[in-house]
Amino acid sequence: MESPAALKALFETRLAEIREQDDWSRSLYRPMAYILNLGGKRVRPLLLLLSYQSLSGKSAKTALNAAAGVELFHNFTLIHDDIMDRAPVRRGKATVHEKWNEDTAILAGDAMFSIAVDLMVRDFPEFAAPLIREFMRVSVGVCEGQMEDMDMANAPGASINEYIEMIRKKTAMLIGGSMSLGAIAAGSDQETVAAMYEYGEAIGIGFQLQDDFLDVYAKEEKFGKQVAGDILENKKTFLLIRAMEKADASQSERLKSLLFEEEDPGLKIAGVMAIYEELGIPKETRSHIDAYFSKAERMGAVLAQHPGFAQIDAFLKALMQRDY
Amino acid sequence: MESPAALKALFETRLAEIREQDDWSRSLYRPMAYILNLGGKRVRPLLLLLSYQSLSGKSAKTALNAAAGVELFHNFTLIHDDIMDRAPVRRGKATVHEKWNEDTAILAGDAMFSIAVDLMVRDFPEFAAPLIREFMRVSVGVCEGQMEDMDMANAPGASINEYIEMIRKKTAMLIGGSMSLGAIAAGSDQETVAAMYEYGEAIGIGFQLQDDFLDVYAKEEKFGKQVAGDILENKKTFLLIRAMEKADASQSERLKSLLFEEEDPGLKIAGVMAIYEELGIPKETRSHIDAYFSKAERMGAVLAQHPGFAQIDAFLKALMQRDY
Repeated sequence: MESPAALKALFETRLAEIREQDDWSRSLYRPMAYILNLGGKRVRPLLLLLSYQSLSGKSAKTALNAAAGVELFHNFTLIHDDIMDRAPVRRGKATVHEKWNEDTAILAGDAMFSIAVDLMVRDFPEFAAPLIREFMRVSVGVCEGQMEDMDMANAPGASINEYIEMIRKKTAMLIGGSMSLGAIAAGSDQETVAAMYEYGEAIGIGFQLQDDFLDVYAKEEKFGKQVAGDILENKKTFLLIRAMEKADASQSERLKSLLFEEEDPGLKIAGVMAIYEELGIPKETRSHIDAYFSKAERMGAVLAQHPGFAQIDAFLKALMQRDY
Repeated sequence: MESPAALKALFETRLAEIREQDDWSRSLYRPMAYILNLGGKRVRPLLLLLSYQSLSGKSAKTALNAAAGVELFHNFTLIHDDIMDRAPVRRGKATVHEKWNEDTAILAGDAMFSIAVDLMVRDFPEFAAPLIREFMRVSVGVCEGQMEDMDMANAPGASINEYIEMIRKKTAMLIGGSMSLGAIAAGSDQETVAAMYEYGEAIGIGFQLQDDFLDVYAKEEKFGKQVAGDILENKKTFLLIRAMEKADASQSERLKSLLFEEEDPGLKIAGVMAIYEELGIPKETRSHIDAYFSKAERMGAVLAQHPGFAQIDAFLKALMQRDY
């Protein structure tokens, strides 16, 4: 059984082989190599590999192509989402549609999706049908989540339930899917596959809510980006949506004035944070995060019988920055 | 064994069921229903169904979802290509990105692709691996073809070999793929699958060259669109690329002057057609078309042993408007 660090090294080697194929020098492939080269924690392929080796008892090497499948899929969604979000920068570098153009970004994304689907079944022909059905269930969900995110940005009010459903689809389904796809490739029964999915999905929602929380309440040096950027951008996060739901008429007026009229960044952040405190938003957010992580722990208890599951749990706990 | 007309009726019914699912009322799905509603000859799903019933000896009803898979895939490529081509109209109606917007068109296309892949394996779990590998081989090829088409539009010179390779990928691979996917679902051996693919691909290339030819030389009332629109748009077709290759210095000067300076449409068309005649372009194009249709006929002879193959051949011959 390989450690997450050893798996990451194996995975980066496989990914480099894919990127360095002769074909990939052509114009359609250069944007794919470029975005895969931007790096990242590779959380999704590692989860697939950890899930596979825990449940199959076999070497995770067999699952490297399937792991590349989820990573290429994830990067395809990033290329297309960056177009829709008009994002100029990702990981400190120009996004694909900025470096090339939108047409190339659309097309390279489509081709990358196709290669991802092919990689998923390459080494598991006997499980191709359930792998594809689960992969496409997740893929459709991710598209629905992105659509709901765009619809929500343009709609006046959004409920907290709509928000959680949106992040469940847009972010958490692929975390859950990485776990369940590893389990399907390992030949697990449906109950185990479903438990792995639920475990990953709950952690995925918890992670996203934690991102929302830490953007405002993390120490800057720890979190590595500007604190409260979400407040400055009026981004619809768990905190802001819940605050708008709970605010009385006077708090609602103050909030709107801060969001749309306050020009001093320091005053805007301090003002919004004061309202969050009045409404008990930080405490409520923490308790939501804990609820999702606790749900994952309950699912984890069911899965703990599998050798190597403790490793998955430890890997994910290391990603949960609980020090708030 | 069902006739093409009977299969088309069955297919439209299945497609209507897919379009009318409850889920499809949501914002992500409305563009999919819209483009599928624009109609069309449904050549690709019919080829899949005809190939399947010929080779399996079973009812084509089993393959209706797989047939919907190639049709949804084709329509996904139309949605994305229309964005890249800045096309405002398709089949007399607004394109998806015109009716909604580019973001919705990108995302609805992505989701439609995902559903297409799912539909392909739904009723053939035992052949899921070869179906997916063939489907994604075709999908990557179609993306490469579209990229080569865009690269070619921006590059000064293109060779006739590059042009044929581009239309092979962009158009003919999915015609061939519809045949081979039907054969794989029927459980055929690799030789039969390959022969079906080659047969369809050759016909696909022939069809595209025929389109180029008929745009200039068809009688308007027969072809149903403006004659010589390709000449007016300076579109790089087999005829124009070959003329530019064969032209001597003086013909090349005349051709460029007609393409980039002549403002009278009638004079432009007559002038370009005169150069085509001088260079023997119509004859050369016809002989290329015949070569591809003859290649298809040779492959067809190998496949003629299968009951129902004559039906496929007749269906395709009806689509070949040979009356030039």
